[in-house]
Amino acid sequence: MEVKGSIDHGGNVYAAARELHRPISDIVDFSASINPLGPSPAVRRALAGAAALIEHYPDPDCRRLRELLASRWKLSPGQFVIGNGSTELIDMIPRALAIRSALIAGPTFSEYAGALQRAGARSITVPATRSEDYRPPLQKMSKHLQLQGTRRAAVDAVFVCNPNSPTGQICDGTDLRALIKKADHSEVWTILDETFIEYCEDQSMLPWLSRYPRLILLKSFTKFHALPGLRIGYSVSSARTAAVLRQSQPPWSVNVLAQRAAEAAIEDRAHARRSLRYLRRERERLRAELSSLPGLTLFPSRANFLLLELPKPHRAAVVAAHLRRQGLLIRDCSLVPGFTPRTIRVAVRARSENERLIAALAKILR
Amino acid sequence: MEVKGSIDHGGNVYAAARELHRPISDIVDFSASINPLGPSPAVRRALAGAAALIEHYPDPDCRRLRELLASRWKLSPGQFVIGNGSTELIDMIPRALAIRSALIAGPTFSEYAGALQRAGARSITVPATRSEDYRPPLQKMSKHLQLQGTRRAAVDAVFVCNPNSPTGQICDGTDLRALIKKADHSEVWTILDETFIEYCEDQSMLPWLSRYPRLILLKSFTKFHALPGLRIGYSVSSARTAAVLRQSQPPWSVNVLAQRAAEAAIEDRAHARRSLRYLRRERERLRAELSSLPGLTLFPSRANFLLLELPKPHRAAVVAAHLRRQGLLIRDCSLVPGFTPRTIRVAVRARSENERLIAALAKILR
Repeated sequence: MEVKGSIDHGGNVYAAARELHRPISDIVDFSASINPLGPSPAVRRALAGAAALIEHYPDPDCRRLRELLASRWKLSPGQFVIGNGSTELIDMIPRALAIRSALIAGPTFSEYAGALQRAGARSITVPATRSEDYRPPLQKMSKHLQLQGTRRAAVDAVFVCNPNSPTGQICDGTDLRALIKKADHSEVWTILDETFIEYCEDQSMLPWLSRYPRLILLKSFTKFHALPGLRIGYSVSSARTAAVLRQSQPPWSVNVLAQRAAEAAIEDRAHARRSLRYLRRERERLRAELSSLPGLTLFPSRANFLLLELPKPHRAAVVAAHLRRQGLLIRDCSLVPGFTPRTIRVAVRARSENERLIAALAKILR
Repeated sequence: MEVKGSIDHGGNVYAAARELHRPISDIVDFSASINPLGPSPAVRRALAGAAALIEHYPDPDCRRLRELLASRWKLSPGQFVIGNGSTELIDMIPRALAIRSALIAGPTFSEYAGALQRAGARSITVPATRSEDYRPPLQKMSKHLQLQGTRRAAVDAVFVCNPNSPTGQICDGTDLRALIKKADHSEVWTILDETFIEYCEDQSMLPWLSRYPRLILLKSFTKFHALPGLRIGYSVSSARTAAVLRQSQPPWSVNVLAQRAAEAAIEDRAHARRSLRYLRRERERLRAELSSLPGLTLFPSRANFLLLELPKPHRAAVVAAHLRRQGLLIRDCSLVPGFTPRTIRVAVRARSENERLIAALAKILR
């Protein structure tokens, strides 16, 4: 591995290919959670048609994409900020909003804490607990805001990922709305990362945006639309907040091919429906088969990955390294604070690939 | 135009196409200065071959590209930081190096001041003067550093673009080395943007990198390699400085297609030689023809664009708008502090396109 002893972001097929002396096409990546059906066929056509555009600067305003998103979500184009992956937006937000201190619903994507640290801000992780199946600790977070009362200071933002990665758990809707409301009334920003929301879209907080001016949603084309290599994501917020965010963004952040691919992706609703059906079926198959393996603990998931705990005396790092030698990448979560040394995360992939993983895990566990 | 009354970055063919109700292919863009021969044919092949890779996260380490650059420039891969365009690096540098105050050799690319402002730093522009043909004011800058003496404060960085945009002037080599040396000895960073250096590569400060630990060079694939739409540039510095810069960069900033295109571009030396020959010849042809137009002032340029001053009573904004209606975009420099209201910049493009521009300008001026 490239970086020993640090938290594994997953998805580094290049490092694996180098290490294993194999082509990338030989690596089966269960460590990133990308739609197993891949991008819409319309994306490939759009990319081929856009090749000549690489000789021009991209549209710095991402105008067409913002118009399509506005029409898709029945909002106005001014409410969207397109980023070089939602990672760019996560990086910008603490600086753009002058956040000094934030609560994070953990364990979660390490870039929230990373971005806060890079901006010189403090972060406090409120951990979900294993005894509650890692359900996002929203009531505890609300309580934290309650206790800080009207003191303008303490915390000025909360970060929540829904469904959360890497746990897969969905937030309780009532608790989440209560937290957002509490935060908004306390002049605290809520940054709600809905990167995996397509798998349970009825849970999205989009309909509540107009009520809470301090709510910012993050969305991505990386996971469900399967475009991680192109880098494109977006935020949805009040137009006023969007304008503030845009001031922190350098020009031309979003390359032209990402813009064109994203435009094609959101227009192909049939591919989206097909993907959802496939994913739900395969997730439940994978869950059922993994449940039959001896000693493996499965946690609830509404996303396209499953959080697992290996039985003792297995260790996540050893099992991940073992599978890696077979070209199967999984996420070793053991270094993420809040998990046991036996916690791993696996993506739901195409059926034949899932079968390979199950067989490999069975061999280890039996 | 999208943004009235603000400095024109150039290159926004999307805004022009919307405004003129014309396809982008009908717009001839003299406002961005992209190699008129376009990207190497090897780039198109590389992009076609890399299409399947959009389903994976890009290599966050840009390993292969850094190895190719290291071999090209006889340096080590650790000395390179690849960015989402050099614009991302310009944006990061003030934060990464905790720059509080910087000198800028102006008039120049507005993103140096923009990035400093976004980072809460102060910038002082030392202006080149028209009476010296906008020669970069390096001696004045050295003097400024001299005067601040050993007081640790005042200025902690200098920004120089060589050849400078939009003036086209090259720095005097002796003066530039003196400034870099002076800065280095005063613990002041020199950020030297060599985005246009391919047109006069013997002037590059690459050979001096090892001597001056506080020298950072910026390079780009946008202009000479004609990849503005993909977003890719890089910095070259000491490995130690590169490591510091990398800590300020969010993961996966550089998309996979940009990486692959850049790899193909630097390997095609024949296309580079062809481009240089073409550009030099066309620049001199364009200069000669423009010189024959009544009242037009031309300034010296070593880049692939020319800075011009229209005769009175013409105004840059009016002439630019007039040409724009014909689908010809030029850079109106009148709002850039340091230029007269009659200053414009035009790129050197393909011969037939240059002829169109000359004819259109002739009609206005005669």
